[in-house]
This record gives sequence, structure tokens and C-alpha cells, in this order.
Amino acid sequence: MNLKINENGNMVIGNIDVNEIAEEYGTPLYVIDEERIRDNYKRVFNTFTKHYNKFRILYACKANTNLTVMRILEEEGCSIDAVSPGEVYTSLKAGFAPKKILFTGNNVKDEELKFVDEQDVLINLDSISQLERLAKIVNPENYKISFRVNPMVGAGHHEHCITGGVMSKFGIKEEEAPEVYKKAIDLGFKPVGMHSHIGSGILDPKPFKLATNALLDIAANVASEVDINFEFLDLGGGLGIPYTPEEKPLDIDKFAEEITGIFKSKTKEYGLGTPYLYIEPGRYLVGDAAVLLTRVNTIKNSYRKFVGVDAGFNTLLRPAMYDSYHHIAVANKGNNREVEKVDVAGNVCESGDLFARDRPLPKIEEGDLLAILNTGAYSFSMASQYNSRPRPAEILVKNNEVEIIREKETYDDLFNKQILPKRLQN
Amino acid sequence: MNLKINENGNMVIGNIDVNEIAEEYGTPLYVIDEERIRDNYKRVFNTFTKHYNKFRILYACKANTNLTVMRILEEEGCSIDAVSPGEVYTSLKAGFAPKKILFTGNNVKDEELKFVDEQDVLINLDSISQLERLAKIVNPENYKISFRVNPMVGAGHHEHCITGGVMSKFGIKEEEAPEVYKKAIDLGFKPVGMHSHIGSGILDPKPFKLATNALLDIAANVASEVDINFEFLDLGGGLGIPYTPEEKPLDIDKFAEEITGIFKSKTKEYGLGTPYLYIEPGRYLVGDAAVLLTRVNTIKNSYRKFVGVDAGFNTLLRPAMYDSYHHIAVANKGNNREVEKVDVAGNVCESGDLFARDRPLPKIEEGDLLAILNTGAYSFSMASQYNSRPRPAEILVKNNEVEIIREKETYDDLFNKQILPKRLQN
Repeated sequence: MNLKINENGNMVIGNIDVNEIAEEYGTPLYVIDEERIRDNYKRVFNTFTKHYNKFRILYACKANTNLTVMRILEEEGCSIDAVSPGEVYTSLKAGFAPKKILFTGNNVKDEELKFVDEQDVLINLDSISQLERLAKIVNPENYKISFRVNPMVGAGHHEHCITGGVMSKFGIKEEEAPEVYKKAIDLGFKPVGMHSHIGSGILDPKPFKLATNALLDIAANVASEVDINFEFLDLGGGLGIPYTPEEKPLDIDKFAEEITGIFKSKTKEYGLGTPYLYIEPGRYLVGDAAVLLTRVNTIKNSYRKFVGVDAGFNTLLRPAMYDSYHHIAVANKGNNREVEKVDVAGNVCESGDLFARDRPLPKIEEGDLLAILNTGAYSFSMASQYNSRPRPAEILVKNNEVEIIREKETYDDLFNKQILPKRLQN
Repeated sequence: MNLKINENGNMVIGNIDVNEIAEEYGTPLYVIDEERIRDNYKRVFNTFTKHYNKFRILYACKANTNLTVMRILEEEGCSIDAVSPGEVYTSLKAGFAPKKILFTGNNVKDEELKFVDEQDVLINLDSISQLERLAKIVNPENYKISFRVNPMVGAGHHEHCITGGVMSKFGIKEEEAPEVYKKAIDLGFKPVGMHSHIGSGILDPKPFKLATNALLDIAANVASEVDINFEFLDLGGGLGIPYTPEEKPLDIDKFAEEITGIFKSKTKEYGLGTPYLYIEPGRYLVGDAAVLLTRVNTIKNSYRKFVGVDAGFNTLLRPAMYDSYHHIAVANKGNNREVEKVDVAGNVCESGDLFARDRPLPKIEEGDLLAILNTGAYSFSMASQYNSRPRPAEILVKNNEVEIIREKETYDDLFNKQILPKRLQN
């Protein structure tokens, strides 16, 4: 995320001083930059289509399912990677046509398969079990499906996020792919695609190139054994963004050129025609388009120096769960130099509730506003009400305009859906 | 948790076959055993009061803030350890008198201090910053407060849960305690208590004994330097429950005898009078009083064998976040022997979404019902809507009766509080 600082040393997003936004709406607060999302989409789309025209971006919406975020991407022409019936429901509500949605669930139950079928959304099957059950739920005759395969290539920023390889719960084993496609065809289905996904948070094209090669090899192997015309081959997601100042962004030009290069030469070599090339970025589209604003309320000189803020791992789980690095800027002291290392601590009653350990920061005082950067992906979407803390508001900024797109929850929202039995009422 | 199996091999809670409950309410589903909560409370209360009469149990309600659970404990005579304004609000709504609530926040902001003060709830201060700010918010004259101190004793089941010691963000440094109490008194406050909390999930009395000694030493040190009459000394929580079959439960009789023994001899030795002894169990009161029911929808023979279920780390975070062990029973095959090791995988689209790796289980088939045990604490309270999955229902069982105490969320609940700007509407 490129920090913009105004002449007062205040951080600016969409031409607005975030200190003003924090003042008006309170903290903690997610602030989303509309233009950044649009730019991210266009950058990927334009770069890939320069090299290969039959290209679609399926937004991995689990990264951020805010309706407004999804509407912005729908306006850009994006498609959707949905991993649950709720994501299909949300995508439809956000205006995505059913044919623009691909459903790739894991451990999907029958009622969920029924629901997705009823929405006319293409199902990308993750297991033989799903195939057999779907055959009983729908009429398989010419029913279009696709399969997720598990290539022996895995990569990711955290062991939780390595999704290919022998430990993975996802997909069909690559060596079983031909017989599974054959089985599908024997049941009457019409397989039209193949999907794989190797990991997340990847900044290096190398694993993607391996995965592209692997997917095309598996597709060719399938095509050599069954009668199939692939309408699409889906490389999945995992495009990373730089979280630390040292990390370099993915070179998207080189990435697109290399991936489409492999795709074109291998589809030609194997006689696979000209299927659509799909990719499924989530983090890459929205990750660097938001900050979490949180205000310092406590400076504590204990055995270590703690800077205490009004957000916690209920608001942003990644540092506590994955030990993820999020860069932290002092939004009202953007020009100040780093002078000391501190621990930035949240307000949840757990020792692991820290946003940073030993982080070099400018001199911090109570009342300062911190901006936790790159919190557009896997941030609000993973928020909880743990410690009975209502979830925060979300703000959209664009060209000097500020719009609230999610109101802060109230204490009473903590009781939604609860029913206290009469005999226990006080 | 003691498993009860009926003559059909089905698991039973509160005399009800959980298979019937799952059939009626669907899965995933939390099922809570009312009598177990009451028994847990009584066991601790009766055991301690045998040895020391001025004793109170403050339920660490972050473990489970369901209103019904809190009403049950209120009926038993319990008090509350609240760590946020939302928990104070919830406790009041659950019928706890303000004087039965102790507020111990971390990184608390001014508006939160104001809120807690307005509810007439005693504030246990965690930092000098809080003390100084509270002095400006309230009239300190004879205003009762307490302090959390950080003793150099830390213990816990996971590094996130070690809350004492040099790395901890919690409390006042033990060597600073006298000057902080003095400062409070100089400001006009009336300190009446001292609190410490060393960790969580502890099954061994040893660290508690060290902590009890430490707290009393610190209290004596304070009392030797300032004029103070401790109304209570609060040992915090951290009482564990056995999660694995190998773990032995905390010997509560021995525990109560040893802790009260130290407490009585040290208060006498130091001339501290007869303050109330507080403890703050959370997990111990509610942890083993619930199961999470989840149904197997997929058996996948990949490079490993996966048993896929309809819950995920959105429903129960502990295994994915803390690598916590939760015992898993097959609720419709309670008498079957373990025959193979499998991975029990959730339905979230992340590789880390596993409830167990290499877990010995009876032969599992699709449609089987699994009960994930000991999910009464830090389970629903940490649930999220990640992957756009509505949060599940909660059921209370007691003497053949089944009551729904929280309805399942709907897909539309995912949009609560969201506002889509007009210009982006489709």
C-alpha cells in the first residue's frame, strides 16, 4: 500500500485525511479505497488480456464479502469464485449473473449442492463423494460440471495456506483425474473445466508456473483418455501482495506473460483448443485497498513497552492466528521517523492479542491514530464478536467522498438470535 | 466430558439422544448441558467454602456469553469477571447485580471507562494510564478501585494464553505495585482489591500455588507501604479441563485446600485481615458442558483419508488457531471401536481448517454424526461468519427437555448493518 501523507503529516486515502474520518465515525474503523480496488482489477485484466483474450478474473470473495466491495468488482466486469452457498447468495445479491459465478466448495452437503444447483451456478466438484451425490440430486444428462484437482505443487505464506500437495484436503488426486472425469461422463455429466489452487500470498511467479504446467499436464492426460472439450482451465488464486516494506510486489507483467505463454504453448501442444484461462485472486484485488484505523488509548511501560489500541484480534485476526505481518503507520504523524521498538497490543483479554512485537515506530502518545495497512482481505471477513465486542463500521472513500457502507454493531446486536427460555428469565 | 451412550450406541446429553436433536435442528449445532454447568459451579463453590467462607466465583464470561448460560450461573449465585463494556452490558442484561461484576479491561479507552462507571461496576485497573485517565473521568474521592498486577509467574496451555511474566501486556509490574497504590490513594481513590491472572487451561495446582504466594506477597508489600484494607484478593482464572483422554482433571479438593491454606496462612502472617478470596474460572465452569454436533458429508481418500464435516473454523476456531485438541466421538456409533486414523476436516476454504489430524476413530461413513467434545468455552464466543457461513444454533438440554436458546443465522443476516451506496446499486 502506498502511503499518502498531506502537508500536516496526516495520512490520506481517496484525498481524505483519515484523521477526519476517525473523528467522525470513531474507531476501530475499516476504511476502503474504491479506486484502489478498480485499479487492481484493471491491472490484472489488462495485463493478461494483452497476451490472451479468453481470460476471466474470478474474485475469491472470501477475502472480503462486503456487498459494496462486490458491487464495485461487478461493475468492473469481474466474475466470482464462491466457496460456500452463502457466498453464492451474497454474489447474486451483489448483482453477479449466475453464469459469472463458479462454486468450489469443500465438504459440501447435499442441501448445499441443491441450493447451488437451484441458483443455476456451475459447480466445481472437489471430491468423488460430491460427484456421486450430485448425480442423485440433479439430472446429470448434459449437466455441466468441473473438477478441482490437487496437483503436487504447494506454496503459500503460512502452512495453513498451502492448498496443494499430499497434506491437502482439497481436490481430486492428480493421478485419479482421468478416471473421475470418465466416471462423470459415464454418469451423463458434461465436464467443461478443470481447476487447481496451490496456495496463497505468493509473490513469486515460479510456483504458479509449476502449477500451470501441472494443470495443463493433468488436463491433457484427461483429454487423452476421455472425450472432453475444456471450456475453461482455472489456475486458482494465491497472488500475493507485499505486507512488509522489504517485500516486492508481484511483477504482474512478467507474471501474465509467463503464465499465458505456458498456457498458450501447452494448450497448443496438447491440442486442447483455446479454453478460457481463469484466475481467482482475492487478496490481490482488495488486500491493499483498506486500512484498519485504531486509536492508542494506553502507553504502558511494563517489562516491555506496550502501545495499547482499541482494536483486537476480534477485529483483525491475522496477526494472532497466522503471525502475519501488517505494516503500521501513525496516521497523524506520517512524517515522523521511527525512534523506538514497541509492542502494539489489542484490547482482547488474551496474551496473543498483539498486532506487532518489537515494531519500530515513531514516538507514540495516547490519542495517536494508527493505521494498520493492507487490511482489505481476510480482515473484516474473519471478524468476530469475541469478548462481546460489537464488530466495527466500514467506510468507503473515493475522490473526496466518504460513505458509510457498514454501521458499527451495537451491544444489543450481541443478542441477535438468542432466545432466553421463560423459566430462566429474571 | 463423560460420554453417555444409550442402548442403541447413541450419545446422550441430559437424557436426550443427540441424534434426535441434530435431526430436528440441523447441523452444525452446539448442545449445552444445563446440569453440567450447575454441577461445575457447585463443585468449586462447595469445595472452597469448606475451607474458607469469604469466597466468590467470578465467571470469566468471555468463555461463553450466551445469555442463557449466564442466567444459569446467576441463579447459582455466581459473580462475573467482565473484560469489556460489552461483557458488562451482557452481564447486566443477564440479571447480575452491578456489585457482582468486576470489570478488568485491557487497553480501555475513556468512553469505555465512563460507560463502566455509569453502570456502577467496580473497575479493576490494568495500567497507570487507566488510573490517570479514570481520575479525570470520575470524582476519585473514596471511589473504590482495584489493580491487576503482573506477577512473575506464567502458565498456560498455549503461548497465547500465558498472561503473567515479562512478555505480558497485562497488569502493573509487581515491583511498581506499592507506588501505584500510593498514587491512587494520593489521587483520592480507595483501592480495595488486588488481582492477578497467570494463564489458562491449567490442570496442575503448582502454578496457582506460586501465583497465590506471589499475589499475597505483593499485597503485603503494598500494605506495608500504604494504608489499605483489602476487601478482596482475586487469583484470576485459568483452571483447566482435560481435553485429551490422557489428561487428568484438576483435583479440585486438593486445589481448594492448598490454595485456601496458603491464603489463610499468608493473610494471617502479613496481617491482611480476612479479605474475600476471588477466583475467575471460565473454561472450568462451561467448557465440558457443551458439544458441537457436525455431520459427515464427505469421505475422501486422497493422499490421506479425510472425514469432511459441515462445521469449520468459523464455527470452532480453537483447533485451527491454537492447535487445540478436542476429542471427537461418533454420536451414532458410541460403542464402536477405533479402527483407523483419519483427518477430520471442516468446510472452510483453508488448508488449516482441520479439527483433527491422524485421529483414531471408528469406521466413519457419510451421514454419521460427530460430537466435538468440550466446546462450551471459547467456542461459540469466537465464532465468525467467515466464508459467508451463518453462525449456528445453540440448544440447551435438561432432564429430557430440549430448548433452542439461539437460532441459526440466515444468509440475510450476513448483510446486517451493511449499507450499499445508491450510486452502486444494481
